[in-house]
Amino acid sequence: MNSEQNQKVKVRFEPVGVTVNIEAGRTVLDAALEAGVHINASCGGEGVCGKCRVTVEEGAVEGGLTEKINAADAARGVRQACLATLTEDVTVRVHVESQLDKAALKALAAGAPQSAILIDGESLKKEGRFEPALAKVVVKASPPTREDNRNDVHRLLSALREVGESGFVFEFEAIRDLPEAWRQGDWQVTTTIMRPVGRKGGRNQVIRVEPGDTSSRNLAAAIDLGTTTVWAQFVDLNTGQVLGSEGDFNSQIGYGEDVISRIVYAGKPGGLKRLQEAAATSINEVLGVLARRVGLDLKDISLATLAGNTTMTQLFLGVEPRYIRLEPYVPAATYYPPVKARDFGLNFADHVRLLLFPSVASYVGGDVVAGVMGSGVHKDPRLTLFIDLGTNGEVVVGNQDWMACAAASAGPAFEGGGIKFGMRATKGAIENFSVDPVSGEPGIVTVGKAKPKGICGSGLIATVAALMLAGLIDERGRVKVDHPSPRLREGEDGPEYVLAWAADTQIGRDIALTETDIDNLLRAKGAMYAAYMTLLEGVGLTIHDLERVILAGGFGQSINLERAIMIGLLPELPLERFTFVGNGSLLGARLVALSNPLRAEVGDIAEKMTNFELSTAPGYMDNYTGSLFLPHTEGKTLFPQTWARLQEVRRALQKAV
Amino acid sequence: MNSEQNQKVKVRFEPVGVTVNIEAGRTVLDAALEAGVHINASCGGEGVCGKCRVTVEEGAVEGGLTEKINAADAARGVRQACLATLTEDVTVRVHVESQLDKAALKALAAGAPQSAILIDGESLKKEGRFEPALAKVVVKASPPTREDNRNDVHRLLSALREVGESGFVFEFEAIRDLPEAWRQGDWQVTTTIMRPVGRKGGRNQVIRVEPGDTSSRNLAAAIDLGTTTVWAQFVDLNTGQVLGSEGDFNSQIGYGEDVISRIVYAGKPGGLKRLQEAAATSINEVLGVLARRVGLDLKDISLATLAGNTTMTQLFLGVEPRYIRLEPYVPAATYYPPVKARDFGLNFADHVRLLLFPSVASYVGGDVVAGVMGSGVHKDPRLTLFIDLGTNGEVVVGNQDWMACAAASAGPAFEGGGIKFGMRATKGAIENFSVDPVSGEPGIVTVGKAKPKGICGSGLIATVAALMLAGLIDERGRVKVDHPSPRLREGEDGPEYVLAWAADTQIGRDIALTETDIDNLLRAKGAMYAAYMTLLEGVGLTIHDLERVILAGGFGQSINLERAIMIGLLPELPLERFTFVGNGSLLGARLVALSNPLRAEVGDIAEKMTNFELSTAPGYMDNYTGSLFLPHTEGKTLFPQTWARLQEVRRALQKAV
Repeated sequence: MNSEQNQKVKVRFEPVGVTVNIEAGRTVLDAALEAGVHINASCGGEGVCGKCRVTVEEGAVEGGLTEKINAADAARGVRQACLATLTEDVTVRVHVESQLDKAALKALAAGAPQSAILIDGESLKKEGRFEPALAKVVVKASPPTREDNRNDVHRLLSALREVGESGFVFEFEAIRDLPEAWRQGDWQVTTTIMRPVGRKGGRNQVIRVEPGDTSSRNLAAAIDLGTTTVWAQFVDLNTGQVLGSEGDFNSQIGYGEDVISRIVYAGKPGGLKRLQEAAATSINEVLGVLARRVGLDLKDISLATLAGNTTMTQLFLGVEPRYIRLEPYVPAATYYPPVKARDFGLNFADHVRLLLFPSVASYVGGDVVAGVMGSGVHKDPRLTLFIDLGTNGEVVVGNQDWMACAAASAGPAFEGGGIKFGMRATKGAIENFSVDPVSGEPGIVTVGKAKPKGICGSGLIATVAALMLAGLIDERGRVKVDHPSPRLREGEDGPEYVLAWAADTQIGRDIALTETDIDNLLRAKGAMYAAYMTLLEGVGLTIHDLERVILAGGFGQSINLERAIMIGLLPELPLERFTFVGNGSLLGARLVALSNPLRAEVGDIAEKMTNFELSTAPGYMDNYTGSLFLPHTEGKTLFPQTWARLQEVRRALQKAV
Repeated sequence: MNSEQNQKVKVRFEPVGVTVNIEAGRTVLDAALEAGVHINASCGGEGVCGKCRVTVEEGAVEGGLTEKINAADAARGVRQACLATLTEDVTVRVHVESQLDKAALKALAAGAPQSAILIDGESLKKEGRFEPALAKVVVKASPPTREDNRNDVHRLLSALREVGESGFVFEFEAIRDLPEAWRQGDWQVTTTIMRPVGRKGGRNQVIRVEPGDTSSRNLAAAIDLGTTTVWAQFVDLNTGQVLGSEGDFNSQIGYGEDVISRIVYAGKPGGLKRLQEAAATSINEVLGVLARRVGLDLKDISLATLAGNTTMTQLFLGVEPRYIRLEPYVPAATYYPPVKARDFGLNFADHVRLLLFPSVASYVGGDVVAGVMGSGVHKDPRLTLFIDLGTNGEVVVGNQDWMACAAASAGPAFEGGGIKFGMRATKGAIENFSVDPVSGEPGIVTVGKAKPKGICGSGLIATVAALMLAGLIDERGRVKVDHPSPRLREGEDGPEYVLAWAADTQIGRDIALTETDIDNLLRAKGAMYAAYMTLLEGVGLTIHDLERVILAGGFGQSINLERAIMIGLLPELPLERFTFVGNGSLLGARLVALSNPLRAEVGDIAEKMTNFELSTAPGYMDNYTGSLFLPHTEGKTLFPQTWARLQEVRRALQKAV
């Protein structure tokens, strides 16, 4: 996995009259689905079904021509939307095949979300808070003489004092290596110094000495150890520059999909050790791939930081996790001291310290603290809702004065768990969806533009939102099997919508979304929404008081705001109040390496956050029950715009049909 | 080796009229030699030569009867002095076989030293400075509930606060073990806490947690890592009580007798590693023997302290020692942080910290700092000379305001090195000696009362002192080969005195002391004396300004004050100014475990001590040359009493003969 940011282009769709901004390099089909503009497309983006023909009226696209398009069509701009790559602003005419007028089309497509704002830590330098947790300081000394035969450490301390450095303690290994370092470096050495953090009177810790000047190699590795994925990022501590990021699945998945099953596995003989090693191995693999890609040696890394949820942190450290799972859900610790990365099997040099993020509670972990820190919730006067949507859903409400947090028992639906054809967002997963309300025909895009294999979290949200908007499922998530389209049918597991016919898939079976799947999604999104509401109610506030919403987490990253609001997963607020921070855990992990002032705040953040156990919180069950609707039983008050739009679409469709 | 202190008994020798106090359990022969009273004895104390017959006139002894004594003699109290064990006060008549009158006998015997004062750390409790570096604190908590599901560390911190403890940092391993400890101990745990030392704002470090109450097992091991011997002592940190001591040779001896040869060996491939392991192995062996003897498990030890000279410390830690040996003699460090004892191969539990004594310079090490600390030189207003006489000789002069120190290049003579029949103080080594000035016949006692094999350091001093007093060697150490006794002869290596004829030895060869041996001893003692003088002159003082002298070190322990002064090894001062601290290194190592206030002083002591390189110090060579006499070229002024006594003995002998 490799995240890159590209330039944006503007795509206008006719006859709908909707415009969307999207990254260059994506397809016209992607752009249409982003905009809520429906184009029939059933092969997932592979180009084989040939259904997704559009006409490029202004500007040009790359590709999109196949033998399914004759020369004349090609000449007048007809392309296959799924193969046509965007490189500049274009106007595209959609070949409307159902009997919908422009008003209905527009009602269905309206409200494409604004681009999300991405915050970053690079601003630290401008703010004067660029003070990495670790420094390399180069010093020179004159060689010892009969008159000056002070010991090697004393000579180093004097040399450090000359460059304005004082207040040191020495790691034994630094002392051990010093005699040869002085002499091999011809009386020039580079000291690697961990800066003190937090309380006053802390000392600089010399953790390594090397001969000569190695100060140009001063790198940190930030690690996000997720339940499902592991991400790592290298950052240059001299410049603050990110050298690259890399991610892969956490191989602990083999021992259980979620934290609970892993804790159970850890209780088996040798289980905890295997899970510890699996985590270390996954991190090492990601580090290795990244090191090769950016062309550096892991031995040049001087510092590592790691954020993970409470269970992931305890499993990585080999700390018995069973009491996280058992009533009353007690983690071992919130705060861990810096440890030596090698002691936990990471492929760094011996001296490398690993800084760990503190947890708040059993189900609000260091990843959330990292995200809150990285997105500055604790420094902002505005009332903020922070949502970490990963394998687990965690929610924080607060501002610079106070913070309340809770874990939402959202379950695994967002990652494809409990969904009949659910899968993770890997190749062949349906990740985007639109539907023609009249014909019931879908437009689908899959990860990697392959033939569909299943449906992932973002596809699930897109599908449910689109089906709901098109009136093909009702507000309780019931599938309208009386619709003329054969895609809406009574399947073997009850009512369902067929996303892809067997012939169009990789699996040779019809891929369908069942009512049970939709029900599971409703439970998941209901748990999230009830969590926000309950936390807010707990402090006497409501959804409408929220001044900003920050979305973090692996899944949060790929979410479509409009659709997530439409199904009632996210609160309905003006879109400009939403901010995506992407992987907040990784962001926080990077920032602590770059800024000791921020690192000092981490402990305070964890202390400041009051954890609510939702299962016992008053009002939670009512909020949950109310949230098991599309978008909500209180749709008219809590989701007024969604509610209004649904009415508008209904009216437009009734008129059109 | 096992040092025990016994009750003393009083032994009066007639017709000499000299009384000596000596430990019960030692022999009459031992007592005679201590008192300077000559008894012919040539088998080393084995009882086979039968020459050492004495008559017990008052009181009784145990043993001393052999077939060499007939019934009538036995009935009137005749015993073999070497087999007669002292249990009570006695009066013993020596069978004077040479033609010396009482005056001459008394002149030869006069000046038996006072008992030395032994200082100890037990007084700490009385002084209110009994604050061990490590504490075990037991706490209880109520089990977590839904309402109180704080993490396990938080619960521990609250419980600690309830018993008045605060300001903690946690070792990772303590956090790791805490979940199970709380639950196995039914919400009672014992925390092992390293107390902060030195600067303000230091934190208590929790290094271990155990289920239940283990506070009754709270032990430290103090270790003296000498060039030749390794000593260990267990001390109860709850009571301050010493549980036992044990020593053995340092198996590094196999790689070289002295620090220089070991440093050379360390430079060979794998050499440093082998020396490190040899040191650890020797320490482990001593610890193992001691643990078995006092009946405890090494896993019950919570803390270890170690003092050694600079080279021993670096070899033990695996720190490159070569620059200690090379001009300009630079050690790696003075101060080392606490390390984990397991990391260096010691057989303790994983959490056990090893506190190391800081060094001052390449040849003034942590053993000297420990001795200075243990004997309180740095807290006393009196001008003190501290002498550590081990394999190397180190000297400190100073008081509470200042300290100067130096390493004396005494060489290995005190440990038998460079002496033809020299050996360490092991079984069969002649350790005490007297001589009849007329017949030239010796009285010898060996270690372990075995047939003689050679001569050790204390035997060497005793022999040279006795021969000098009896006029059998002159003030330059020349052997009077014209004496009628066959024991004074021209041997194959020049003039010599025969201590034991071949038939009386274990080695089947005459054991003799050669003029070259005596010359080597003069160089060794001269180097020591010149060191005191030069240090004192360097600060404008003289030997006469010394208000007390502290003798430490393996060899210092067994030294006979009077004889050491007589040959000019120790300065001539009133005997009550001398104090023996025995193994100062071990004493200091024990005290830092027992008293954090003392531990805090250690760094200051090392800082305070100014090291003088004697080889380049002005006046040193002159002082050295002047010291190559018996007792000194300035004998009349620097050693007035010795000088007067020598005159007295000369007169008495001339009259007698």
